[in-house]
Parts: sequence; structure tokens; C-alpha cells
Amino acid sequence: MKKLKIAVLAGDGIGPEVILQAKKALGAIALVFGHEFTFEDALIGAVAIERTGKPLPDQTLNLCKNTDSILFGAIGDPIYDNDPESKIRPEQGLLKLRKELGLYANIRPIKAYPKLMDASPIKKEILQGTDFVIYRELNGGMYFGEKHLNEEGTYASDLCEYSEEEISKITHLAFTAAQKRRKKVTLVDKANVLETSRLWRKVVQKIAKEYPEVTLEFLYVDNAAMQLILNPRQFDVLLTDNLFGDILSDEASVIAGSKGLMASASIGEKYSLFEPIHGSYNEVKDKNCANPIASILSAGMLLEHFGLIKEAVTVFQAVEKAIINHIVTIDLKVDSKFGTNEVGDYIANYI
Amino acid sequence: MKKLKIAVLAGDGIGPEVILQAKKALGAIALVFGHEFTFEDALIGAVAIERTGKPLPDQTLNLCKNTDSILFGAIGDPIYDNDPESKIRPEQGLLKLRKELGLYANIRPIKAYPKLMDASPIKKEILQGTDFVIYRELNGGMYFGEKHLNEEGTYASDLCEYSEEEISKITHLAFTAAQKRRKKVTLVDKANVLETSRLWRKVVQKIAKEYPEVTLEFLYVDNAAMQLILNPRQFDVLLTDNLFGDILSDEASVIAGSKGLMASASIGEKYSLFEPIHGSYNEVKDKNCANPIASILSAGMLLEHFGLIKEAVTVFQAVEKAIINHIVTIDLKVDSKFGTNEVGDYIANYI
Ligand SMILES: CC(C)[C@H](C(=O)O)[C@@H](O)C(=O)O
Ligand SMILES: CC(C)[C@H](C(=O)O)[C@@H](O)C(=O)O
Repeated sequence: MKKLKIAVLAGDGIGPEVILQAKKALGAIALVFGHEFTFEDALIGAVAIERTGKPLPDQTLNLCKNTDSILFGAIGDPIYDNDPESKIRPEQGLLKLRKELGLYANIRPIKAYPKLMDASPIKKEILQGTDFVIYRELNGGMYFGEKHLNEEGTYASDLCEYSEEEISKITHLAFTAAQKRRKKVTLVDKANVLETSRLWRKVVQKIAKEYPEVTLEFLYVDNAAMQLILNPRQFDVLLTDNLFGDILSDEASVIAGSKGLMASASIGEKYSLFEPIHGSYNEVKDKNCANPIASILSAGMLLEHFGLIKEAVTVFQAVEKAIINHIVTIDLKVDSKFGTNEVGDYIANYI
Repeated sequence: MKKLKIAVLAGDGIGPEVILQAKKALGAIALVFGHEFTFEDALIGAVAIERTGKPLPDQTLNLCKNTDSILFGAIGDPIYDNDPESKIRPEQGLLKLRKELGLYANIRPIKAYPKLMDASPIKKEILQGTDFVIYRELNGGMYFGEKHLNEEGTYASDLCEYSEEEISKITHLAFTAAQKRRKKVTLVDKANVLETSRLWRKVVQKIAKEYPEVTLEFLYVDNAAMQLILNPRQFDVLLTDNLFGDILSDEASVIAGSKGLMASASIGEKYSLFEPIHGSYNEVKDKNCANPIASILSAGMLLEHFGLIKEAVTVFQAVEKAIINHIVTIDLKVDSKFGTNEVGDYIANYI
């Protein structure tokens, strides 16, 4: 019997509705396997700005530091997007949380579901057998380097920085993952132009020697953006920095057929956070049509992280069952009659 | 009758063999239309390092400044790629050339050729009708900001900088292009995280008011990487910074079916350079199987740039003819018997 206290940060847009389904799935797991999961809600993002003036209220941060793990919904609101002058933005909440909790590795599995290949814009022959995982560094790079805007508002800069230590931490995780998989790491960078990329190459090459059974390959990010579509099967573990990881993992989501299927884990030394990679998607908010699978799979990754492997597999199987039986939202099947709630209920019941 | 003096920078890998075909095509155009094109070769890239110790010898730069335009082949050699310690790299030659000549706009047209849709990893329904052009800023951003590596080699940084002026120049070009096309500009940035992106948004929004008939849309770069594959038809003119443009234009090349089809123009106030976007591709060097079409289309863009519209159209039509008649290299047709030379000859003869 495992006790877990989980902070629930539903956030903006479709966040709350999909996270509700993840909680249902975890509730069902607790019931079946006799665990005790307690949930505590807290504010983040645009909702938090509205109510408290801050995208990450202190109360939320404190809660996160005093729970076993975090379930995260989504963040962002178009009101802020189209106002480049606005000083406070929802995304700052998520970025601050990642930094404060030291969540340095963002792990995003990419899999082509046989039943869903028709939903993907990419041809079946290309997709078949694709199964890799992206290790994106999450605490450094351009996201957190010094930003500058001159007084006249005519010059801006962002600093991209990396230290050997930052690179080492995620690299070890990536190689350890590769050992248990198909034993290949592909480092994606822009070493022909960037100094930080050359540091990545140097550090990763050095660490690779400690994992002699794992093959290390290099790809420039421009080429990688192409290879993801041309030949996604070539990847096993794709290791990259914060910004490139952001771009490539969104791109890779087309492989699965929908971003609504893409889960992620953000891992640090002490804390962990689980989050669907789709954003807040405000256009479909409260319409009962958001795909809850990414959020449910993220809950499955949470179970995996705490060593509850059987439980995680049960969640993954329930999701596959829903997909096989076409109990999916309209992003996966244009004429589907099932909404967010129905898919969530089906998966929880199956568990 | 037009006289043009053209510097030919063949560079590395397959550069020399594809550029030979572009010269053939231009030679045929000169003959048919009664122009006088003279070519002068110069060194750049790995070949230049080998012979002179510098990736961009002064002689080459001087020649470029004293010709009407530049035909560029390719640059890069794996010897340098896998050595992060090497201080001199072929790519520096191209970057320095872009900077010294003030080539601030890189223009990359993306088109789905009906005859070639089977060669693309993307489904036909998605590709059909795709026709857009990427305007990539080419003189600023992370490519040219200050780079730093500490003495111990444990910390590195790259600065991404943009000024209002840099953004304005390419933005005007992009909007002018959109006026003559489907009247839509999509600005791709990461304004929810980067200060430079927020400056881009502000400047572009301001300039957009001068082009009231053109619609301006915004996309985050992660989302754009996805949309390029999900729904490429939505784009008309895609405007973005140096690094994002590098990544997205390589990704977009899968739409055309092969990178071997993708031409580009780099434009400045005084100078212009025309270049296939494929790299040096050393693996197939001197095997007579590199696709010369990107290089030939780049020559077509050169003609267009100098107002030789009929001539440019003739080149584009000759290329389409080759494609329709399957006179193409193996990247486009697996069992093709035609090599670089045969395709080049066919196109020149057709002209
Ligand atoms: C919301 C945004 C700041 C975030 C990021 O860029 O990291 C998102 O795109 C993601 O990938 O989690
Ligand atoms: C060779 C390299 C420096 C170059 C770039 O990154 O700009 C290339 O990828 C390109 O897109 O022209």
C-alpha cells in the first residue's frame, strides 16, 4: 500500500477538464490496488494572475514543495500572447516552478499507435514501429538566461547559457534510459554555429564513455527537424537542450497523430511533475471535446516514477483499450460522439 | 541584352557538381535570350581552409564585392563537425560572407509538386496546394551574438540579439512579398519566453499597419513546427528569425519531397547570393547522384532577382518538365537511372 500526496495544478483553458480525468484514473488505480492518493488543488497561470496577481503564488509553490508529486494541467491565455508589453504572463508560473523545483529533465515519449496511424499527416510506412523518447533539458538555456530590453524599446537580447554540470545531469539520465531501451542516444544541437552546442557535444562525448554499450550519434537541429518526419524510427533516445527540445517535441507529436496523446514527465533531484504537452487550448475550453488521454498518460508516468509499474501498465492498457475501441475524442476520430468526460469515464471504469 | 558577372563559390561536398549544372542552365539561358553571363570561381569552406587556412579567403570576399551576384554551392565537412575543439570551421566562411555582404534576408520558397507527392513522407491530402515562402532573417540573432567559453571549458554562452532596425528591414520585404501573393504574413517566434521575440512582435505589429491589406498572424515556434506538417496550406509568407528560420525551413523541405529541390535567395541592400539549401552531403560526393535541381532553381531565382522574369520562368518550366518526365535523381525516384549530369543536361537542353 502506497500513500501519495499529489498537488493538482489544473491551470488554464482545458487544464481543469483534462486533469479531472487523470484524477479519476488515479482514483480507480488506488481503489483496485489499495493505495491512498490524496489530491490538493492549487492555482497557477492566468487563473492565478486573475485571483492573486501572480502566475505562481507562494502558496502554490509551498504546496508543491510539500507533496510527493505534481499533476499539471495547462497554462496560457491568448489575452497575454498578443500583448508583447505585458510584464506578467501565465507562462512565467510554469517556468518559475520548473526552476524552483529543479525539474531539469523533461521526458516525452513518442509512439506511433497502430490504430491511430490514419490520424497522422505522415504516411503509415514512415510511422510504423516508431518508438522513442525525448530528453529535453528544462532548467537552462535561453529560457533562463539574462533577458534585456533597452529603455527605448529598440534592442532586445536573450542569453543562452549552459554549464557542464547542467548538461551532465540530464545526459546521465538519457544514457541510463537508453541502456534499458535500444541503446542509442542522438544528441541534437547546432554545434556548427553555437558555443553552447559545442559544450554539449564535448560533455556528452565524455559521459558516453561511461556507457560503452550505448551508441552516441549527433544531429544538427535543422537536420533533426527533417529526420523526425523522414525517418522517425531511427531515434531511440533523443537528447537536447531546452529550446530545441521544445520545438522538436511539439513537432514529434504529429507522429502520434495528435498532441492530445502526448504525456510528459519533468524530473528533478527531489521533485517531479507530470503534464500533458498540449497547451491550454482555450478555444475548446468547457466544450467537453478536449482529449484527456495525454493527461491520463501523464498520471501513468507518475505511477511509473514511483515504482508502481503494474499500476502504470494498467493505465497504459486502459488507454490503448479506449483507442482500439474508438472511445476517443474528435481530434482522433472526426465523427466521434465521445467527449472528454466519456473517454475519462471509460478509462477509469476499465481500470 | 544583360551582362552579369557572377562569382561562383562551389564549396564542399556535392557543391561543385550541382553548381556545374546551374552554370549549364544559365549558359543555355544566355544563349537563347542573348545575354552575357561571365563566371568567376573562388574558394570557400573546407576546401578554402585546406588551401589557404581560412574558410573565407580575402580574395573570395573581394571578388564577391565586385561581381553582380553570387552562386553558392554547399559548405561543411564531417571532419570539423565531430571535433568540438576545432577553432576554424567551414561554416564560418558562409556566416562571415552573409554578414560582410549584409545579406539580411534568406528567402526559401516551399511548394508541393503534384508529380512528387509520392516522394514525400506526408500524405497527399495534406500537401495538396501548399505554396508558401519563408523569410528568414540572416544577419542577426544567436548566429552572430557574442559567444563565450570559460577557460576551464565548463561554461558556454551564446547571445541572441535583435534591434528594431534589423527586424524592420526583413519585415518590409516579407510584407511586400505578401502583397503580391495571398496577402498573409505569419510571424513565428517564442514571445511567451524570449525578450527578442517580444521585440519582433512589437516591431512587426507596427509595420503591419503600413500594409493594411495584408493579414498578420502569430505562431509560437513549437506550434509552427507542428503546423508545418499538420496544415502547411495555411502559410503564405512565414517570417521568422535566423535560428527558427534555419530549423523550420529544413523541416519544411520534406513538403517538397526532397531537400534536393529547395532553392534559396539571400538578399541584402547591395549584394545577393543564391544557394540550394541542402548541405555538402559528403557521403555522395562525386558519385553523380546528387540532385542538381535545387542549385538550378537557385540560378532561376538569380534571374528573377535581376528582373529577367521570362528567363527565370523558362528555368522553372524546364525543371518541371524534368520532374514530369521523371528525369530526376534517385532521391526523387528510387529506381532512377539518371545522375546529376544527365538531369543537368536535360534541363539545359530543354532551355
Ligand atoms: C508554455 C511554454 C512556456 C512551454 C515551454 O516553452 O517550455 C511549453 O511550450 C512546453 O513545451 O511545456
Ligand atoms: C551551414 C549552416 C551554418 C547554415 C545555417 O545554419 O544557416 C545552413 O544550415 C543553412 O541553413 O544555410
